[in-house]
Amino acid sequence: MSRDLSSVKALTFDVFGTVVDWRTSIINELKQLGESKGINAFWESFTDKWRGGYAPAMDQVRQGEIPWKSIDELHRMVLDQLVDEFQINDLTESELAHLNKAWHRLAPWPDSVEGLTRLKKKYTLVTLSNGNVSLLTNMAKHTGLPWDVILSSELARHYKPDKEVYITAASLLDLQSEEIMMVAAHRYDLDAAAELGFRTAYLSRPLEFGPNGETDEAPDMPYDIIAHDMNDLADKLNS
Amino acid sequence: MSRDLSSVKALTFDVFGTVVDWRTSIINELKQLGESKGINAFWESFTDKWRGGYAPAMDQVRQGEIPWKSIDELHRMVLDQLVDEFQINDLTESELAHLNKAWHRLAPWPDSVEGLTRLKKKYTLVTLSNGNVSLLTNMAKHTGLPWDVILSSELARHYKPDKEVYITAASLLDLQSEEIMMVAAHRYDLDAAAELGFRTAYLSRPLEFGPNGETDEAPDMPYDIIAHDMNDLADKLNS
Repeated sequence: MSRDLSSVKALTFDVFGTVVDWRTSIINELKQLGESKGINAFWESFTDKWRGGYAPAMDQVRQGEIPWKSIDELHRMVLDQLVDEFQINDLTESELAHLNKAWHRLAPWPDSVEGLTRLKKKYTLVTLSNGNVSLLTNMAKHTGLPWDVILSSELARHYKPDKEVYITAASLLDLQSEEIMMVAAHRYDLDAAAELGFRTAYLSRPLEFGPNGETDEAPDMPYDIIAHDMNDLADKLNS
Repeated sequence: MSRDLSSVKALTFDVFGTVVDWRTSIINELKQLGESKGINAFWESFTDKWRGGYAPAMDQVRQGEIPWKSIDELHRMVLDQLVDEFQINDLTESELAHLNKAWHRLAPWPDSVEGLTRLKKKYTLVTLSNGNVSLLTNMAKHTGLPWDVILSSELARHYKPDKEVYITAASLLDLQSEEIMMVAAHRYDLDAAAELGFRTAYLSRPLEFGPNGETDEAPDMPYDIIAHDMNDLADKLNS
């Protein structure tokens, strides 16, 4: 907690869970679609399984079992399995394609835009997400997230926590690792960034996985900052 | 001129010359540096040669004569030759490095921010420049250019007008070529984009190369829109 942070020029943000509340957003889209189509299902469970299928799908890419696919493509692979599993048969291809892009329309946590707007005065704000560039661009446009530059795993063709993602980001930003602070609600992401010399900030998002979900928080986490929301991060960075 | 433009969702912008006035900005930085260091030189000529050295340097990369180098690196190669040629010997390494980044601090043409702000309501605004990502990011932060996403030749590791640059942009935006309009003050850039099916807008910048400079304008140009500045482009796109 005592490292000098005065060298930090850019903040790289994990997005799903850290900046946006994917779970509530996806449940809401599914419920609306269900109502309009007369489909009943346990949408919370559908949502958790949709998100739950994403890490194994990424791991298939990371381990070279399947060739590079974007998150849009991985979300669609999992969605196709889930509509089978939930026996949802009456969605057209265009409805499925639109539903898959619900991940482009995720809403920010209530403090995100305000906190980022404060941080933007002092730092270059960068996405560093496994989401593809078009997803992150559409999301920012839809919600007003004030990024300076959108970087993505897609640009490295590796998924976090592969080191190539962080190295590619530092290279594109033309910054040394100690000039970058990774901000995430997930330890694996911060641990990978710290390994390469990035500064790190853990952002608590206790509701990411719902009211009964488990978070990644642990005692004595070795990060430079532990913040309870985006405004708290801005406070702790004096911005 | 009569093609349907209703499919266009994103505008990709050339930046040097089209959005920012590199010549006036660089001349001003050089004059200030010259005054503070007591160096006299023909700074207009220095500037024109600096810019003039950039296309041949890029062509060396494009033709594989030298490995990939960013525009920052190419600018520095040319700068080092020019300080020799102009016999400027009293700049330190840190002053040269700062001067080289004058290209990160270029000022927009007077209509650029206003016109882009209007266009942003209707379109996704994208840089598609030979400038590297950090240069474009710093420039936007410095001047308030309201980009939605920063794309660059650097992401394709090819320079415009190589087709890989435009193809990479369409892929990252997840758009078909007819959903993208390339905006530039240079015909070679629009011709390359049009070849791949992009829509095209020529933006006149008669002063890009100074009061006595030649522009790229020609009679009967085959582009979808010919605009005399960024606000005129917004008018012509009804935004």
